[in-house]
Amino acid sequence: MRRKSLTGAACPIARTLDVIGDWWSLLIVRDTLRGRTRFSEIQKSLGVSKNILTRRLKDLVGHGVLELVPAADGSAYQEYRLTEKGRGLWPVIVALSQWGTEEMPRSGPRQMLVDKQKGEPVGKLELRARDGRLLKPGDTMMTRVDA
Amino acid sequence: MRRKSLTGAACPIARTLDVIGDWWSLLIVRDTLRGRTRFSEIQKSLGVSKNILTRRLKDLVGHGVLELVPAADGSAYQEYRLTEKGRGLWPVIVALSQWGTEEMPRSGPRQMLVDKQKGEPVGKLELRARDGRLLKPGDTMMTRVDA
Repeated sequence: MRRKSLTGAACPIARTLDVIGDWWSLLIVRDTLRGRTRFSEIQKSLGVSKNILTRRLKDLVGHGVLELVPAADGSAYQEYRLTEKGRGLWPVIVALSQWGTEEMPRSGPRQMLVDKQKGEPVGKLELRARDGRLLKPGDTMMTRVDA
Repeated sequence: MRRKSLTGAACPIARTLDVIGDWWSLLIVRDTLRGRTRFSEIQKSLGVSKNILTRRLKDLVGHGVLELVPAADGSAYQEYRLTEKGRGLWPVIVALSQWGTEEMPRSGPRQMLVDKQKGEPVGKLELRARDGRLLKPGDTMMTRVDA
């Protein structure tokens, strides 16, 4: 489906989507953030074929989002762990989660992001200017940097 | 490529990705946030085939992310405009942009998100607990709600 690589795009959104721009990749990042690190755990969680999962994991390792390391429990297994770069995707996952909670509400059993310490729902993601002003969509723009 | 619908998933991240989980959809949202609202403008910006763009726009309208309205200039054209629900994706776009800027850096001409009023780079997206504590990845968890 992918028609051209956006890795070198000037737009940072396009560069990001070049790496994590399909739903499997972001669901894998979500799972590893939650501590699912083994191939079989992730496959069970996503209900995805081994072929697709193998390819996506390979891509994510290739992009430095995940790394393949020996299992923490000393067993013969290997685990996929988020790198520092991969953990940087946490705000993307939080933003996706908040939109799903607000704009795609669901009745019945559902999951919600909470503050571990108090068990309370977290606030909305906030973007602020350097001087502390809270920013809304119309308050920002993309600008070109040539340096 | 999509194997099953996640619209009814308990996880809000999965529900969101069911709607905007491919890179074209998020790039379309990015373009409409920037004021590109006509089919031809978006097609030129993305370099995508008319077929794919038509399908993605139809999906986004179907999900209530975009709406098709008469052009603001009174011409015979129609425009795709973000609904309130669609504008709610702004934090997702900002998060993607910040990761691209930090983790996929690029030399040469590039774009950067700035505060319109001062022209300065914006701060990082912040997530806070109800009591104001700044939260990091390990400070949150997904919890199940049954009500």
